[in-house]
Amino acid sequence: MRISQLADATGVGIPTLKYYLREGLLHAGEAESATRASYDASHVERVRLVRTLIDVGRLSIERVREVVAALEHPPATRHELLGTAHDVLRAHDQPRLGSPADGIAPAAVGQVAALGAPPCADSPAARQLGLALTAASAAGWPISDHTLETWAGAMRTVAGQDIDAALAGTSSADALRYAIVGNVLTDPVIIALRRVAQEQLSAEMLGGTGGQFR
Amino acid sequence: MRISQLADATGVGIPTLKYYLREGLLHAGEAESATRASYDASHVERVRLVRTLIDVGRLSIERVREVVAALEHPPATRHELLGTAHDVLRAHDQPRLGSPADGIAPAAVGQVAALGAPPCADSPAARQLGLALTAASAAGWPISDHTLETWAGAMRTVAGQDIDAALAGTSSADALRYAIVGNVLTDPVIIALRRVAQEQLSAEMLGGTGGQFR
Repeated sequence: MRISQLADATGVGIPTLKYYLREGLLHAGEAESATRASYDASHVERVRLVRTLIDVGRLSIERVREVVAALEHPPATRHELLGTAHDVLRAHDQPRLGSPADGIAPAAVGQVAALGAPPCADSPAARQLGLALTAASAAGWPISDHTLETWAGAMRTVAGQDIDAALAGTSSADALRYAIVGNVLTDPVIIALRRVAQEQLSAEMLGGTGGQFR
Repeated sequence: MRISQLADATGVGIPTLKYYLREGLLHAGEAESATRASYDASHVERVRLVRTLIDVGRLSIERVREVVAALEHPPATRHELLGTAHDVLRAHDQPRLGSPADGIAPAAVGQVAALGAPPCADSPAARQLGLALTAASAAGWPISDHTLETWAGAMRTVAGQDIDAALAGTSSADALRYAIVGNVLTDPVIIALRRVAQEQLSAEMLGGTGGQFR
């Protein structure tokens, strides 16, 4: 298909598609002449992925380029896969956590280790957890070991579903796409479920009466 | 204390403090003369809250003003409290979900109802969940009823901790502060725990071998 048809198929304008081509977010079409190229289903799929990462995931163009590069050269083993995915997700996860240069408090390092997680220095996810615990504590909101353990148990249930689905992918690129795009798209669902559960439990505990404060 | 001492106590510069005063984020000090006012511990606490909401929560000034107004005029009953908190949090939660004008897909409305949640039209949390499910589905990532139920069960465990702590507050303002600030500060912890659990489960399933892809 021509670039105008790619625009129709994806709902993304031609100037934006040309921008994606220049920025390396979209692979070049097959050249038919000096000024014309032909695009196929792989381009439609890529444009949809880029839009999802930008619109829903709020990733920067630079970070989308990292995702695309990772998908084009996926790690050779499943073992490396989540590390790659979580490393790419760090900018998605960390804007709320203050500057990474703030460092991770020793108490947070200890809490992460107590969960049986890898050391903060070794794993993007553990580092992210250390930063989140440090930020909450610095804002006067320390999280107790008991609360953290309860939450960690619940999130293992959530992650069990994630891993079953991610490893069902038959290729490294499929699994990586699942790990990155799946997390970006479903984090808001997880947070919304937290709020819904808060409302449900609150209503159950208070009954229909809407207890007055003391 | 004078405004210069408030600046020292909070690490926030005098021009920024004056901006907070003008914008209604910080309540006025007690006037001692036409050009001098006196501030107390309540001002230190408020400045810390505002910084947390801006720096960690990434809330806009306008949204911080809503939080502050809610805390100054908290709802009379515990029943209304989470609705107020979740309504204030909508801007914090929704930037990743596309425009609210996109609406909620009928399938998502049904999935929210199947969880036993209030109707999407009635509850900020349910509406947020409907939007998140709609966004994921529109991006080619529909979430099955089974996955959603599993996640919802896990998030009830997370929320159980939240509610116990929030309702332990002795005043409506305390509980509201917990519901807003607690969610803003601990959402990143929940998401980081999801990533850590993904890495742990992946490592357990793959053993130390780092299985090759087929």
